[in-house]
Amino acid sequence: MPYVNIKITPEGATAEKKAELISGVTQLLARTLGKNPETTHVVIDVVETESWGLGGLPVDEYRRAKSGGG
Amino acid sequence: MPYVNIKITPEGATAEKKAELISGVTQLLARTLGKNPETTHVVIDVVETESWGLGGLPVDEYRRAKSGGG
Amino acid sequence: MPYVNIKITPEGATAEKKAELISGVTQLLARTLGKNPETTHVVIDVVETESWGLGGLPVDEYRRAKSGGG
Amino acid sequence: MPYVNIKITPEGATAEKKAELISGVTQLLARTLGKNPETTHVVIDVVETESWGLGGLPVDEYRRAKSGGG
Amino acid sequence: MPYVNIKITPEGATAEKKAELISGVTQLLARTLGKNPETTHVVIDVVETESWGLGGLPVDEYRRAKSGGG
Amino acid sequence: MPYVNIKITPEGATAEKKAELISGVTQLLARTLGKNPETTHVVIDVVETESWGLGGLPVDEYRRAKSGGG
Repeated sequence: MPYVNIKITPEGATAEKKAELISGVTQLLARTLGKNPETTHVVIDVVETESWGLGGLPVDEYRRAKSGGG
Repeated sequence: MPYVNIKITPEGATAEKKAELISGVTQLLARTLGKNPETTHVVIDVVETESWGLGGLPVDEYRRAKSGGG
Repeated sequence: MPYVNIKITPEGATAEKKAELISGVTQLLARTLGKNPETTHVVIDVVETESWGLGGLPVDEYRRAKSGGG
Repeated sequence: MPYVNIKITPEGATAEKKAELISGVTQLLARTLGKNPETTHVVIDVVETESWGLGGLPVDEYRRAKSGGG
Repeated sequence: MPYVNIKITPEGATAEKKAELISGVTQLLARTLGKNPETTHVVIDVVETESWGLGGLPVDEYRRAKSGGG
Repeated sequence: MPYVNIKITPEGATAEKKAELISGVTQLLARTLGKNPETTHVVIDVVETESWGLGGLPVDEYRRAKSGGG
């Protein structure tokens, strides 16, 4: 009966990669807890970087600040 | 005070159908638990089929596998 | 393929009422969009009133303020 | 370790406003509970008005009904 | 930057099993999309069976109906 | 019309602190985007540390590993 929601930023999130995530997390739940893949739902949300914050900044700015300058 | 989130795949999810879902679930909460429609929020997320997995597969592939072959 | 999450405060949220919500919302999705009940998941979260805010106040205080005095 | 999800309708939800929300809510969690901004994630979902219901109606209709007629 | 939410029913959901899910899904995101484990958050919600519906029934009833009688 | 969900671990999450979060985030949305507090809902989920993962570990272990020893 599991339901899994994965939120990621868009880089590299192709249909192929999404299929790998769906397959991988479904297998993980089957292997770890014996969950039935037929009732395991996975929903992937791709979130634009301007809508994701970390360290108090949108992630694009956060990454620039971290790789930061000088 | 209810908050309801409905996630569906895109087929047939027109503005009219969404309005029916909003109306129906709000009435259900009022009828079942006496919840006030004025504080009942409903958010509908339409999720692309490549981002929804079931049975370890994206739903398009899952449907093809089920209706499957031969 | 729908997934529905219903968040409510605890008053009256018995197992019987939850079963009514599960049945009602599953039927609504079948009737409105032809969704298959076998792949319709409903998760109900009961949220303590101290953890739910409305009008900038926890809901208990909000209700007192609304019914308010004088 | 906080995770915050903010759902809003689209009016005025520019990148600048989103950055203000990210900054503001991260500071609020640091000030109130001593949460570390480096592990505070904020995800903002912009939800189309046809997909948000209040009072049993999509919000556009709800607003028209409230400002209502005559 | 990923955020993962896993909802499961309580059977077998021990601290050890939760740690396996956390480790497994974090590795999956690193391997598949190169996501940094240091910013990968996983939240596991254990949902009572009376609060989870499938096929229009609470899951306990659903399982009884499926294993069904003679 | 905003809906805000805040997930935090349990340390220090008293009713008073929750009320501060509810008030603070509601004011933030009013100030930043002009959102009406009367339709701003905030739900706070307190998540046990064994159910929250970061860096591939449950947060208790993660914190021990970080503060870690010599």
